[in-house]
Amino acid sequence: MLAENNTVGLREFCGALHPARTAEFMDGLSPADAWRVLRCADLVTRTEVYGFFDLEKQIAIVETSDRAEIGRLIADLPPDDRVDLLREVEPTVVEELMALVPLEERRDIQCLGSYAEETAGGLMTTEFASLPETLNACEALEELGRQAENLETIYYIYIVDDEEHLRGTVSARQLVSHLSKPDVTIGQFMERDLVTVHDNDDQEAVADRVARYDLLAIPVVDHEHHILGIITHDDVIDIVREEAVEDALRIAAVEPFEAGYLDTHLMTLTWHRAIWLVILCVGAVLTAFALESYDEELHTVKWLILFLPLVISCGGNVGNQSATLIITSLTSGNITLGDWWRVVWRELLMGICLGGLLALIGYAAAYVLIDGFVWFDAIVLPITLLAVVVCGALLGALLPLLFRRLGLDPAMMSSPFIAGIIDIVGIIIYMTVARAVLPQLLS
Amino acid sequence: MLAENNTVGLREFCGALHPARTAEFMDGLSPADAWRVLRCADLVTRTEVYGFFDLEKQIAIVETSDRAEIGRLIADLPPDDRVDLLREVEPTVVEELMALVPLEERRDIQCLGSYAEETAGGLMTTEFASLPETLNACEALEELGRQAENLETIYYIYIVDDEEHLRGTVSARQLVSHLSKPDVTIGQFMERDLVTVHDNDDQEAVADRVARYDLLAIPVVDHEHHILGIITHDDVIDIVREEAVEDALRIAAVEPFEAGYLDTHLMTLTWHRAIWLVILCVGAVLTAFALESYDEELHTVKWLILFLPLVISCGGNVGNQSATLIITSLTSGNITLGDWWRVVWRELLMGICLGGLLALIGYAAAYVLIDGFVWFDAIVLPITLLAVVVCGALLGALLPLLFRRLGLDPAMMSSPFIAGIIDIVGIIIYMTVARAVLPQLLS
Repeated sequence: MLAENNTVGLREFCGALHPARTAEFMDGLSPADAWRVLRCADLVTRTEVYGFFDLEKQIAIVETSDRAEIGRLIADLPPDDRVDLLREVEPTVVEELMALVPLEERRDIQCLGSYAEETAGGLMTTEFASLPETLNACEALEELGRQAENLETIYYIYIVDDEEHLRGTVSARQLVSHLSKPDVTIGQFMERDLVTVHDNDDQEAVADRVARYDLLAIPVVDHEHHILGIITHDDVIDIVREEAVEDALRIAAVEPFEAGYLDTHLMTLTWHRAIWLVILCVGAVLTAFALESYDEELHTVKWLILFLPLVISCGGNVGNQSATLIITSLTSGNITLGDWWRVVWRELLMGICLGGLLALIGYAAAYVLIDGFVWFDAIVLPITLLAVVVCGALLGALLPLLFRRLGLDPAMMSSPFIAGIIDIVGIIIYMTVARAVLPQLLS
Repeated sequence: MLAENNTVGLREFCGALHPARTAEFMDGLSPADAWRVLRCADLVTRTEVYGFFDLEKQIAIVETSDRAEIGRLIADLPPDDRVDLLREVEPTVVEELMALVPLEERRDIQCLGSYAEETAGGLMTTEFASLPETLNACEALEELGRQAENLETIYYIYIVDDEEHLRGTVSARQLVSHLSKPDVTIGQFMERDLVTVHDNDDQEAVADRVARYDLLAIPVVDHEHHILGIITHDDVIDIVREEAVEDALRIAAVEPFEAGYLDTHLMTLTWHRAIWLVILCVGAVLTAFALESYDEELHTVKWLILFLPLVISCGGNVGNQSATLIITSLTSGNITLGDWWRVVWRELLMGICLGGLLALIGYAAAYVLIDGFVWFDAIVLPITLLAVVVCGALLGALLPLLFRRLGLDPAMMSSPFIAGIIDIVGIIIYMTVARAVLPQLLS
């Protein structure tokens, strides 16, 4: 259709499907072709479909297409989305475009753009339905009908006084169910106890609150309780996903990065991994120093070496489990710092159980592997495993709690970091037990 | 107030705040006292506040309070929530309660209860607004006003034919903005291209679709496109969080469990950790076998032992990073199986960069630690590190892709599992390089 310049056909294609699906169908098109297709659609559809393109394509279209048309598109985009987009576009292009955007929209873009990206202010949209509290349900619906065309959502309607102080909310459901009562004003049935966030709150706090109170949208207010904007459910789902990926990467000692794996430059990705790997590797050099000081033991009782990787990997695995359990429980609000002693108690008991189990396996392995197995000598291995596993469980649980206590992200206490510490602790425990038990090492 | 039996005061307390906050204030109360407070509130508030109690308290109240009152509560609860609740309550209590619930609600409970918990059917609520397509906007709002009191949401209104086939949706916003056009029926402006899920779809698929299409609620249909229910945004946020925690635990080799860390029985938790630890430990015994076969090398060149933990921990850390990067990218839809060669290429390049970096650190460590450092001999260490890191990056990336290809959860290819494989690969590489380079080992 594009080749034939079939404008009517293209227009129908754009309007027929859900905008997200239309955008998917256009995945294969170059930015220029995609924009040619969208130019055939009506303004509303054009803006909607454009909003579902991936960011790269959006940027390419903005930077290469006719400025006047893009200016109109920018004016129509949801306020929060366009600010995110303009952050990524060439500054010179942004300047040219801003001149083409109506004054009111321009002010709005500058205002939202002044917030940091990960704060409530950076996430909010300035389009929301607001009404005075003196209307009844019927008048309110009429007034909403006038506002509705410019709005992203009317799922909650915000009730404000003359100075834009937030006074309450009503839901569309409440309005509809009060339609038959013309004497009742909104002020009489609105919800007065509001859950709000401040414009400088972190996005994680926003997501927590929306999830806790099962909200569709949360209003953003300043310190005088003026309503500045709202954050809607779709942005919250994105935050929850982003934060989960960030935590998972931190736990694996990768410094989080913004774009997707394949879209991130290889050097950026390498750098985000290298920072932590180098720190961990320097830490691992300490294990070599530790082993050097036990040189004599290792060469007197030759079978000690065999179980070295087993001992440190068991400790590391348990520490890894504990750390992830505690980090995910902390971020999902399942445990707080005040529970630390319950955590320690539980990890101690679990460590003893798990350590006992692994000690049995270790003793069996020793029986098979040691030439000239002496039952008393080989007891070094189960004792070590039990001690290392208990240490691993306690360290893995306590270090993230400590980081949270210090005001740092507990996920920074990554699994490899904990494993590294346990490597050294494990070697020291192993050699200390060996020295205490084995007659050959008693000097 | 409870001690004074101040019913009016308690009733005001219940109604004044957001129900989630009221529930929080009652955190410290025993289930019996909490229920005594709620009995003072009107029916709507009672149900709302009850819905924000934690599950344990909800169960205790259901099991111990007056059956008739609980029966009414159950009838009022949102259909999806009450099914989840009844799944956890003593079967004998459920049987008694079911006799007290109106027939229609009873059927509804049985129908929803027949779905598995993690499917779309298990998540959906059967309360949604539905209208025929022949009404105009004004008639539609009147009809909604009649339905609204029983509904959880009216954010989307579903348009059905006489046989409950789903034909389209309109949003509250669309209705309100068509109020002034009495000649236009809903059928003319409803959205016809619908995003739906089937009742047996997995909850992960539901969350993906809601997030991708920025939906507030998604309709659940059977294979003949009859509408069965809807899944709302608040459930979707919960799923996204649940799935993220599940993935994080899997990556750390903990079998996921349902309740919170502190609410789960210690033996359950231990068991969920022990399954994987035992498998990993048995795997680690293989490292001992591997080392046994290199007995001679290790005792001929004594410094080889020193760097053993360093080599395997570097390989494990890189593998861990790669695995987490690939698993999070797979679950967030950032990469697909078709990208496997791009992934291999990127991991290969990154592996070479990172391996080179760690090789330098390793060589420096060798210079410091080896007595009688010979520059040519010590080259064993950097070569090994480079090879192990490249192997780690490739294995870490490819194993989760392989698991996805086999239809398994890629997160099952946990970090400790990958680290375990790399332990063995690392030992073999280390010893092979040593044999090739060191003159003492050339026999």
